[in-house]
Amino acid sequence: MTQQHDDAFLADWAVHSRFGAVPGTNGVDRQAASAADGEQRAWFAELLESHGFTVHRDRIGNQFGLLELVPGAPYVLTGSHMDSQPTAGRFDGAYGVMASAHACIRAAEELRAAGETPRHNLAVVNWFNEEGSRFKPSMMGSNVFTGKSELEEALATRDPRGVTVREALDALGERGDADVFAAGGRELASYAEIHVQQGRSMEEEGVTIGLVNATWAAHKFDFVVRGEQAHSGSTLMADRRDALLGAARLVVAARELVDEFEPGQLHTACGELNVYPNSPVVVASEVRLLLDLRSPSAEVIAAAHASLMRTIERVQREDRVEIGIVAEHSWDQNPYAEAGVELAREVAESLGLAHDRVMTVAGHDSTNMKDVVPTVMLFVPSVNGVSHNLDEHTRDEDLLAGVAHLTGVIRRLAAGALAD
Amino acid sequence: MTQQHDDAFLADWAVHSRFGAVPGTNGVDRQAASAADGEQRAWFAELLESHGFTVHRDRIGNQFGLLELVPGAPYVLTGSHMDSQPTAGRFDGAYGVMASAHACIRAAEELRAAGETPRHNLAVVNWFNEEGSRFKPSMMGSNVFTGKSELEEALATRDPRGVTVREALDALGERGDADVFAAGGRELASYAEIHVQQGRSMEEEGVTIGLVNATWAAHKFDFVVRGEQAHSGSTLMADRRDALLGAARLVVAARELVDEFEPGQLHTACGELNVYPNSPVVVASEVRLLLDLRSPSAEVIAAAHASLMRTIERVQREDRVEIGIVAEHSWDQNPYAEAGVELAREVAESLGLAHDRVMTVAGHDSTNMKDVVPTVMLFVPSVNGVSHNLDEHTRDEDLLAGVAHLTGVIRRLAAGALAD
Repeated sequence: MTQQHDDAFLADWAVHSRFGAVPGTNGVDRQAASAADGEQRAWFAELLESHGFTVHRDRIGNQFGLLELVPGAPYVLTGSHMDSQPTAGRFDGAYGVMASAHACIRAAEELRAAGETPRHNLAVVNWFNEEGSRFKPSMMGSNVFTGKSELEEALATRDPRGVTVREALDALGERGDADVFAAGGRELASYAEIHVQQGRSMEEEGVTIGLVNATWAAHKFDFVVRGEQAHSGSTLMADRRDALLGAARLVVAARELVDEFEPGQLHTACGELNVYPNSPVVVASEVRLLLDLRSPSAEVIAAAHASLMRTIERVQREDRVEIGIVAEHSWDQNPYAEAGVELAREVAESLGLAHDRVMTVAGHDSTNMKDVVPTVMLFVPSVNGVSHNLDEHTRDEDLLAGVAHLTGVIRRLAAGALAD
Repeated sequence: MTQQHDDAFLADWAVHSRFGAVPGTNGVDRQAASAADGEQRAWFAELLESHGFTVHRDRIGNQFGLLELVPGAPYVLTGSHMDSQPTAGRFDGAYGVMASAHACIRAAEELRAAGETPRHNLAVVNWFNEEGSRFKPSMMGSNVFTGKSELEEALATRDPRGVTVREALDALGERGDADVFAAGGRELASYAEIHVQQGRSMEEEGVTIGLVNATWAAHKFDFVVRGEQAHSGSTLMADRRDALLGAARLVVAARELVDEFEPGQLHTACGELNVYPNSPVVVASEVRLLLDLRSPSAEVIAAAHASLMRTIERVQREDRVEIGIVAEHSWDQNPYAEAGVELAREVAESLGLAHDRVMTVAGHDSTNMKDVVPTVMLFVPSVNGVSHNLDEHTRDEDLLAGVAHLTGVIRRLAAGALAD
């Protein structure tokens, strides 16, 4: 890897970090199909084209850059997402897309320099709406790509202001009219993704490259708490059926649940909560809240789930509210195939990069892709584990090590590794 | 009071209840300066004009109907508000305005029939934005009228979609260009208001007319809870500073505070709570919530306040969040002048209506008016005390008794009662 390559990556990275930049901070606000998302997509398409890629969008707005080295051959796909949470860090997702573009560019250069013809073509992807903050659910682009969600349902999804995915993509000219792979006539050989860890174990243990071998188990709930509207001043306390009180008890219970288990064995969260009618003098009649349980252990998830259900029974009885599950979604600890982990380990060894196996707590687009093609998932460290925060940071040396490592992975995948 | 008068009131009341009616329910959704608010205002103006009133709007959109019986004399003003909470009852406020119009119409008829010239003129008022659900604060119209709020500040207030009071009133043609009283050249002699109780004590005790003698003491807080954005999956629980957890602890603490006092001595509530960034995978960095303490006893309010502040200290320390008071507003138990209560008692006696003194927990426009002119405040019963709810109800016989009683009050005020 040359200094020139590293300089080129850091220069493009610096430009990219300006799209949706939040003034006075190091972070970005670049939700899916926002104006800032459109600007970066246009810039990214130009960048790819300047390096010989052809750029396509599929019908859910996933952005692909194709580098055809062997006419008609299957593609090694690599990428992540460029959309962000509101007021978030500039590394989450975006680093993976930019690293993928540069890894493909370098791999192609190396192949040309060596006079080698690879077995597979190379492609970069910027998945649409991985974050799920503006349009739900998250991982929308890779869900549709892998057939886990229906295209039409995804396009009809509305943001809180009533704008559909279809309308938002059309406003940016980012909705394509055909598949790029599958019905689009191209085949996939394998997939690779690199991402910042969003946790602090790698940094603490001096690990530069995380070989992601599994996703934590999770149980995610969309709860509705139903009470009854009442005057919040004059109604006797005993007469109230306060949906916000019921919801607050769940938020507190979720935090207290963590202490029933060994440290690090259970993460719980409620990040989204909406109150109706949300007026200063009205007892709330309905609250919707999203509540998650996550654990490396299926047993812990099951025990936490049982405890949460007992809390719900008690809150319903004592606070006279009804708590319903609008939707729930759960998965066991979800492994990445061992062959991909081993391939990533070999590349790290060959480059002399400190590496270790690591589980991911968060889901990634690779969680979808690993179910349809051989997949490699990689992490680089996050400083202090800070993520979904304007101050998210990864050091330049780790960014560059990740690009070098991913280039090695792409080279092997292009040569046919994992394909048989 | 004739059957004809009663029939006329109930007929107009039935028409009025259709403005903003929520289909399939008995209630309404008619927030301040909404389209439905505009429709009822236009209809109400026509109703008043058909009975000889002249209709004016002042600069904050208070709607006045003037019945000049004695050129140049001061006015007895009577009214309430026609705006509602979202999905609320049809009686709250609206009953008071409709009862006031009919009481003035009857009082004027009786005066004409008796050949009497009163000492004062009569006027009806529909105060703008008493509820405060769309535009804060509540009681905006009577606040500005009585000089407790600045006109320009009120007009610049925005709803959650960014629309200002000025824009919303202008869209309806409901913003006047001058004062109607004071700088408008007219004097006020006294004020009367009738309202549904929004509690259940009168119904339980068989009281038809409530002689309102005081408002409960209250302490209202606008809190901001500040934490730090983080990934709600991968961030270690010990590293989190979760603003929503802190806010939920306050909501639960407010309810538990009630149990520290004798039943009925403390009402607490949080009806409005807003989360930022309110995304499923982000630990909230900021939550705003409105929290109220109300009591008939200043000592209870003070003790509850002290206890709440101790809870805040504990939550800040244990959950590592910052809790700030953006605004707070408090008042002691706030009496209505005894002369008005006695006048209302005499009228109830003369009509043979069951009556008793009653405190109001909720604030009313009369809370503002009693500080500037002699005021009478009246209640009729609410079935089961249900209010700010689509099923709010008051029986026809109580509605009619209230109109009859208010007519008697208006007659005495027009003759000069309380004026000296």
